[in-house]
Amino acid sequence: MDRSNDVAEDRTITGASPGPSPGAQAGAQAQAEAAAEEARGADFLQLDPADAPPGGLSEWLAGRLRDAIGDGRLPVGGRLPASRVLAAELGVSRGVVTEAYQRLVDDGHVAGRGRGGTVVVAAPLAPRTAPPAAPVTGPGPETGPVERAGGASATAAGEEAVFLREPGPEVFDVLRAAPARIDLSPGVPDLAAFPRAAWLRAERSVLAELSAPALGYGDPRGTPALRAAVAAWLARNRGVRADPGDVVVTTGTAQGLALLARVLTAEGVAEVAVEDPGSLGTRQHLRHWGMRTPPVPVDAGGVRVDRLRASGAPAVLLTPAHQFPTGVVLDGARRRDLMRWVAAGGVVIEDDYDAEHRYDRPPVAALRSMLADRVFYAGSVSKLLAPALRIGWVLAPPGHRDALVEAKRFADLGGAALPQLVLARLMDSGEMERHLRLLRRRHRRRRDAMIAALREHLPGAVVHGAAAGLHLTVTFPGRSPGAARPGGAAPRTAGGTAGRTMSRAAPGRAVPDTALAAAALARGVKTHPLSWHGQRRHRPGLVLGYAAVAPSAIEEGVAAIAAALRDLT
Amino acid sequence: MDRSNDVAEDRTITGASPGPSPGAQAGAQAQAEAAAEEARGADFLQLDPADAPPGGLSEWLAGRLRDAIGDGRLPVGGRLPASRVLAAELGVSRGVVTEAYQRLVDDGHVAGRGRGGTVVVAAPLAPRTAPPAAPVTGPGPETGPVERAGGASATAAGEEAVFLREPGPEVFDVLRAAPARIDLSPGVPDLAAFPRAAWLRAERSVLAELSAPALGYGDPRGTPALRAAVAAWLARNRGVRADPGDVVVTTGTAQGLALLARVLTAEGVAEVAVEDPGSLGTRQHLRHWGMRTPPVPVDAGGVRVDRLRASGAPAVLLTPAHQFPTGVVLDGARRRDLMRWVAAGGVVIEDDYDAEHRYDRPPVAALRSMLADRVFYAGSVSKLLAPALRIGWVLAPPGHRDALVEAKRFADLGGAALPQLVLARLMDSGEMERHLRLLRRRHRRRRDAMIAALREHLPGAVVHGAAAGLHLTVTFPGRSPGAARPGGAAPRTAGGTAGRTMSRAAPGRAVPDTALAAAALARGVKTHPLSWHGQRRHRPGLVLGYAAVAPSAIEEGVAAIAAALRDLT
Repeated sequence: MDRSNDVAEDRTITGASPGPSPGAQAGAQAQAEAAAEEARGADFLQLDPADAPPGGLSEWLAGRLRDAIGDGRLPVGGRLPASRVLAAELGVSRGVVTEAYQRLVDDGHVAGRGRGGTVVVAAPLAPRTAPPAAPVTGPGPETGPVERAGGASATAAGEEAVFLREPGPEVFDVLRAAPARIDLSPGVPDLAAFPRAAWLRAERSVLAELSAPALGYGDPRGTPALRAAVAAWLARNRGVRADPGDVVVTTGTAQGLALLARVLTAEGVAEVAVEDPGSLGTRQHLRHWGMRTPPVPVDAGGVRVDRLRASGAPAVLLTPAHQFPTGVVLDGARRRDLMRWVAAGGVVIEDDYDAEHRYDRPPVAALRSMLADRVFYAGSVSKLLAPALRIGWVLAPPGHRDALVEAKRFADLGGAALPQLVLARLMDSGEMERHLRLLRRRHRRRRDAMIAALREHLPGAVVHGAAAGLHLTVTFPGRSPGAARPGGAAPRTAGGTAGRTMSRAAPGRAVPDTALAAAALARGVKTHPLSWHGQRRHRPGLVLGYAAVAPSAIEEGVAAIAAALRDLT
Repeated sequence: MDRSNDVAEDRTITGASPGPSPGAQAGAQAQAEAAAEEARGADFLQLDPADAPPGGLSEWLAGRLRDAIGDGRLPVGGRLPASRVLAAELGVSRGVVTEAYQRLVDDGHVAGRGRGGTVVVAAPLAPRTAPPAAPVTGPGPETGPVERAGGASATAAGEEAVFLREPGPEVFDVLRAAPARIDLSPGVPDLAAFPRAAWLRAERSVLAELSAPALGYGDPRGTPALRAAVAAWLARNRGVRADPGDVVVTTGTAQGLALLARVLTAEGVAEVAVEDPGSLGTRQHLRHWGMRTPPVPVDAGGVRVDRLRASGAPAVLLTPAHQFPTGVVLDGARRRDLMRWVAAGGVVIEDDYDAEHRYDRPPVAALRSMLADRVFYAGSVSKLLAPALRIGWVLAPPGHRDALVEAKRFADLGGAALPQLVLARLMDSGEMERHLRLLRRRHRRRRDAMIAALREHLPGAVVHGAAAGLHLTVTFPGRSPGAARPGGAAPRTAGGTAGRTMSRAAPGRAVPDTALAAAALARGVKTHPLSWHGQRRHRPGLVLGYAAVAPSAIEEGVAAIAAALRDLT
């Protein structure tokens, strides 16, 4: 601990650091001979002190010398110029140079050898290799400097390939990075409506009132203000009674799933049944965290609880208020049947992802409101405000609360305080409900525009889930094209057959939805093929987000999909 | 999928929902008989429509009825009042009541029985149990409603118990929640200096320029703007050359460790050696993620690389620039020895937690600058701006980059965009460097105040690590009290003895530092006992943060520690 007097210390280069160990010395010998006498002046380094930031000459010089060691211009064994010489060449004080050399000694790059001068004793272990092509190809649009990652120069044909292989963990990143005129990917609300002014106002008042200690490490469950606001929000909007102490603020439902998977894994659960069709992203997350995800069919009443029971899975992940992607609501009979399954020991994860976006009537209450002892509940503001906020919440049954808090603590010690406090203000002030009402009006118009466009351009498609949410699912009849109609007439229900929810596409007749999605992307329109979201075979279809797209672009996008379909059939 | 026409649907209660299954019906029979005829009017529910929010009568009524079902006032088997009757009693339209009943049907709580009326068929599975005492006792101070969790009413003696048992995973939460006048816990910068105005200005301009799609899901590595800003920051301040594509933005170093632990676990690494003494929090994180953490001694030159080699551990976590908690800098000879260990296959995790806070000279370059191929590098703004921002970054060696991105994706899909973009502006504009210079001046004054107070009140203590950082470590001689002096005279170095870094406290002579920390807390001063941060036995000591505390409070705090020590000896 002899560094504790560094404050007053003024070590010289030659006295402070031991030479390299004999081993390093021997290894460097050959190089040293070749490089001997090379490093006598500064000109080969092409140094210009005018490049240095004001007041940072020593740091700048040390950095340049380090670069030169790294790229071989100052090889191991080579001698640095005498500090007096270099200082004169550069027109700087000698202290600047000795300070720079001292930094390299501290780094371990060079060592003083008394009269032998200052010698390079170690270079970066290997020349820095060029980074491989970025796994995530390119950024979405946003402010600030934009980097173009490896895949960004790929041709359109390359981008479409995302649909023509089995979707891997990077699939959503690749799709997001793909250039397209119109993005009908599901899962985002109207982002142009984000209440920027209200957010900034709330942030100003939070910053004005915040105590300094609140900027330190905090409760891993989240700020008390947001936990209280979420508890009140859930009571008002989702029929859930929760104590603020029950709420664990997450960085979104994805983190919520990660935490719940860890809590359940610790209890020996290795299998979480999922709805089928059901979210690909959710399934990827559960699998990444070690869970098997057996599929349970969904029909017009919601998940088939009888099939869940028969599967033997100890847990299930459900989207009861608005099933993804079909839009079905879990009906009362199924809810009661689910309660019996739960009473027999089952565990439910309720992903309440977009329940608030109901157009015809208030949303059904969350399952959690009836089954607080056995339901893990996950929600977020991703569909209410913006996914980029990365704020969500999880409620565990009382018996799992401590384990959930521990999982959160060791995930990240808790989320960021400022955005939580801003969100709490928006929730407490009624701004969130105002925003939600605004969104509902805007989303409804966009949904209507999409239904009208589908009726016009894709009259043979069946529309699912139009009463709520941010997306529609359309299916294309396999065996009997044109059998069902979207829009005003009751769409054909494809579920209910034992063993599958939608009828199997007739081999050789139907276009694979992945090919359709690829063709649509080639025409500049992003969608999700329904098959991404199923483990069993379903009718081909597309999942089409409308909430974040202006009505005119929706019409154009659907027309492009129809044209793509014509190309393929 | 017959819900897809919900838009136009207008189902009646009696027609829409099937009755309960025979099983549920039988089970409910006894209760139903007892409850028969009870639910004929609304008065027993004590409903007052004046309580309803404007425009939300049906929702309000459904919520009240659900409460009544939940708490047994409306038992299973009981009949709801006829809608006509209830509407008249409440003075609301009948549509309000039928709409509320429909919501309960959708929930699964009630079912229509035609002429038999509307019957409660399911209640929440169990009455909601009171939550157990909060595992995290109480919030830190912050704006917004403040909740008092279970432990908050505990006596001071109860709070001190945190030091008198083996520190568990909740230890920092418990300590943070403990009331105290003066918080000398290490690990936070001067939070009162947080640049609130600059932050808000930058946020305003970010919000003004942000495109709508940037509010959607983003690159799991973080926003391109912040990755570019961090790469430039690391080049300017830490000698690290990094491509923005190498940077993965995290929600702080804690998450960084979690991600790295997962990446290494996937490669079969089950052991990460740690410095001893070394951070308890870091060790807890690694262990939570399944790693063993064999201790490697630290002496005046930094970590003992020879002992690391002898340990056989495949990986090590280091704090080379300013070892926590001793403040030692890894010297040049050790750096070279570490390179040899790395060349033989070792992996380094570099926790560069507070390198920028150097008072005597610029900080040494990061290990990563020399060993990019084998060093995982983790940094954050927790010590530069505020831990509550929860923003950090991790760099992996090129061969592990994809695995790191995947770990981040499945941790949370990536961090929040807004704070990242704000931080990028502060970094790009030079505001961060200005803030860092301000912090250094303020911190140095506080450090000097702490050293002066220690000299006055605790002249027998040895001070470690005063040249840098946000904290000091003091040790108390075990065998020979008074042998060393802090301050101007060179403090005694306790390291170097084979097998331990500090000499073993003489049994029966020295006061355990946990007892001292407990006694200090009883006097209203929070500290960390040094023994928390060691796995092997060390001299008793305290780790004392000064950066976030005003000089007068530092003096008062140290005096209180001295008084506590007198109480104990």
